[in-house]
Amino acid sequence: MEMAEIGATARGGCARLALTDLDKQGRDLFIGWCTDAGCSIEVDEIGNIFATRPGRLEEKPVMTGSHLDTQPTGGKFDGVYGVLAGLEVIRTLNDEQAQTLHPIQVVVWTNEEGSRFQPAMVGSGVLAGAFQLQDIYNCTDVDGKRFEDELERIGFKGKKRATVPDARAYFEVHIEQGPVLENADDIIGVVTHQQGIRWYDVTVTGMESHAGTTPMPLRKDALMTAAEIALKVRSIALDNAPAGCGTIGKFDCYPGSPNTIPGKVMFSVDLRHPDNKTLEDMETSLRDFVTLLGNECEVNIDGYWKYPAMAFDSGCVETVQWSVNQLGYRHQKMITGAGHDASYMAQVVPTSMIFIPCKNGISHNEIEHATKDHCESGCNVLLQALLVTANTK
Amino acid sequence: MEMAEIGATARGGCARLALTDLDKQGRDLFIGWCTDAGCSIEVDEIGNIFATRPGRLEEKPVMTGSHLDTQPTGGKFDGVYGVLAGLEVIRTLNDEQAQTLHPIQVVVWTNEEGSRFQPAMVGSGVLAGAFQLQDIYNCTDVDGKRFEDELERIGFKGKKRATVPDARAYFEVHIEQGPVLENADDIIGVVTHQQGIRWYDVTVTGMESHAGTTPMPLRKDALMTAAEIALKVRSIALDNAPAGCGTIGKFDCYPGSPNTIPGKVMFSVDLRHPDNKTLEDMETSLRDFVTLLGNECEVNIDGYWKYPAMAFDSGCVETVQWSVNQLGYRHQKMITGAGHDASYMAQVVPTSMIFIPCKNGISHNEIEHATKDHCESGCNVLLQALLVTANTK
Repeated sequence: MEMAEIGATARGGCARLALTDLDKQGRDLFIGWCTDAGCSIEVDEIGNIFATRPGRLEEKPVMTGSHLDTQPTGGKFDGVYGVLAGLEVIRTLNDEQAQTLHPIQVVVWTNEEGSRFQPAMVGSGVLAGAFQLQDIYNCTDVDGKRFEDELERIGFKGKKRATVPDARAYFEVHIEQGPVLENADDIIGVVTHQQGIRWYDVTVTGMESHAGTTPMPLRKDALMTAAEIALKVRSIALDNAPAGCGTIGKFDCYPGSPNTIPGKVMFSVDLRHPDNKTLEDMETSLRDFVTLLGNECEVNIDGYWKYPAMAFDSGCVETVQWSVNQLGYRHQKMITGAGHDASYMAQVVPTSMIFIPCKNGISHNEIEHATKDHCESGCNVLLQALLVTANTK
Repeated sequence: MEMAEIGATARGGCARLALTDLDKQGRDLFIGWCTDAGCSIEVDEIGNIFATRPGRLEEKPVMTGSHLDTQPTGGKFDGVYGVLAGLEVIRTLNDEQAQTLHPIQVVVWTNEEGSRFQPAMVGSGVLAGAFQLQDIYNCTDVDGKRFEDELERIGFKGKKRATVPDARAYFEVHIEQGPVLENADDIIGVVTHQQGIRWYDVTVTGMESHAGTTPMPLRKDALMTAAEIALKVRSIALDNAPAGCGTIGKFDCYPGSPNTIPGKVMFSVDLRHPDNKTLEDMETSLRDFVTLLGNECEVNIDGYWKYPAMAFDSGCVETVQWSVNQLGYRHQKMITGAGHDASYMAQVVPTSMIFIPCKNGISHNEIEHATKDHCESGCNVLLQALLVTANTK
């Protein structure tokens, strides 16, 4: 709640965009807390903050963390909870005067949201080699301000090289941002997979004509063809339940006059599944459907972005599962539908995630909420997972 | 083709909007032709032009006509053909030195298209009592120019009272503006009905949420619900084939981001049928479907405009049918899906319409086209219909 005061919005949310003065205030607050907790602080070239609680060995820390930046009308928990959960683990270890074999490290990743500077998740993405540091430095915001200049301005262009960390594991705890846990009355999600995502632009071209004088069988109605494809997108997702997702979020109809049959509709398709082969099959189903749809209208499907599905490290998933079992929390195995810094970290370090419920599944919204009890449960699972990993040779 | 030079567009169409200088040029050209053909000319308060070829009796003319104004990117035939077909009948009667019992009168209705001044079809509408003259006078175009002022400016604010004409009948010949005749290889449409039209605004309210983290069964996807309703609109029309029409021409989806499930969709519905009871049943089917759709999303249907279906005068329809039979043209009985000046005239004078094919059913478009042969056939049918009506006691 103290962190949430920095950039607090009237409706109870947060607006703390990456590399703003508010982001700096949040980072400074975090660093102060970590220093008080006896951590050493390092900042790397892309502004990621590494707060390390020493172990008996100096090498191979166990990492956790998330991000402190928010959406323009974001909530108090997305990202922030994962960072502060790591700090809470360190404070708890301090309270118990517990020493670990390997260090425990809490990371604040730079610009996860991608709201001010695109792309998103650049702090983890640069470490994983998904982006070139210089390319990210040259990104500009809507006012033309460069990423690197803003990073320097707030004093967070560090000296540590932004390369693959030599770590034992990375665990990220996060609010679910969906309603699955709440609906099942579960407290913990043991996240096993990052689902694959494919984005398409679909264009349906028919023939504009008069709504009153063109008999139904003679129409080339782009809207009706688009509606058929929309429902097919849903049925493809349902055919691949429970994990399959199909969404049409953007939908534009031309010319947009009540008594003119639409001649053109353009819409987006977002298909997701945790299994790449299944995701490929979902795409094939969509393309086959369009082919079978006949020639009333012309349909073009442009697949312009793919993010492959990926299983989190089985050892890390087992560690989280073991931790939940120790604590006896109601839980389920689940996937993450959204991208997180853990998605990039998983490409270079053994990684998995822990989810807690959020109210009504709402996130990226000022009314985003998670209960104190759920936050505590997530911390406890994280504590167990970090402890067992840090103390194993 | 000479009339089409006034306001000719680069792509072969016409832009001759109501009460512009070009409209005046078109009107003057028509009046010149009619005067040369021995007609007397009267102009009424709303600018309608009445060109009368005398009969042996002075009373109860048989009327025909249409409009000379066009859409901003209109064609050469919509309206103009009906006016010039009337003139051609008069010229033919002159050539044959034929005298009719009742006068034959060709009318140019003011502002049929409603492109510059809304509403449309005001020349006939005022006569039929659908609009008050003063209300129409006070209409303004986008530049704020008043209808009455523009009517005076072009010299067509006449003295004749704009009241119900004491006429035997009104026949309007028009291009079909749809593809039915062409597809059936018919030359003449014997128009029996003006179909009813109902317009609705539909709002579907769901819940915005994340495309990646919201499982399919937990979604309140306004787009998918809207797509179901769209296809239902089509199936309702098909269930009432061949005359039923259902169109969704305007469709807006919010917030319109590829990875956000739409929380709101607003769209138009246009339902048409020549039988009012059937049209009422079509609306009921739509409302019942929405009720049965369940409560995933909230759906509101606002029916904000109705134009009742109407049968044209059976005597006039029979006259046209008899005329076509005499001439032996391939023909069919059909309805008019669009509104015409005949729609208003039918409310006060025995009325029916004659259609000829237009290329690919395209109208309100610069490429609108009708063949010379088809235009001639339509004139021949109109000649027979006018003659038999004008010569019957």
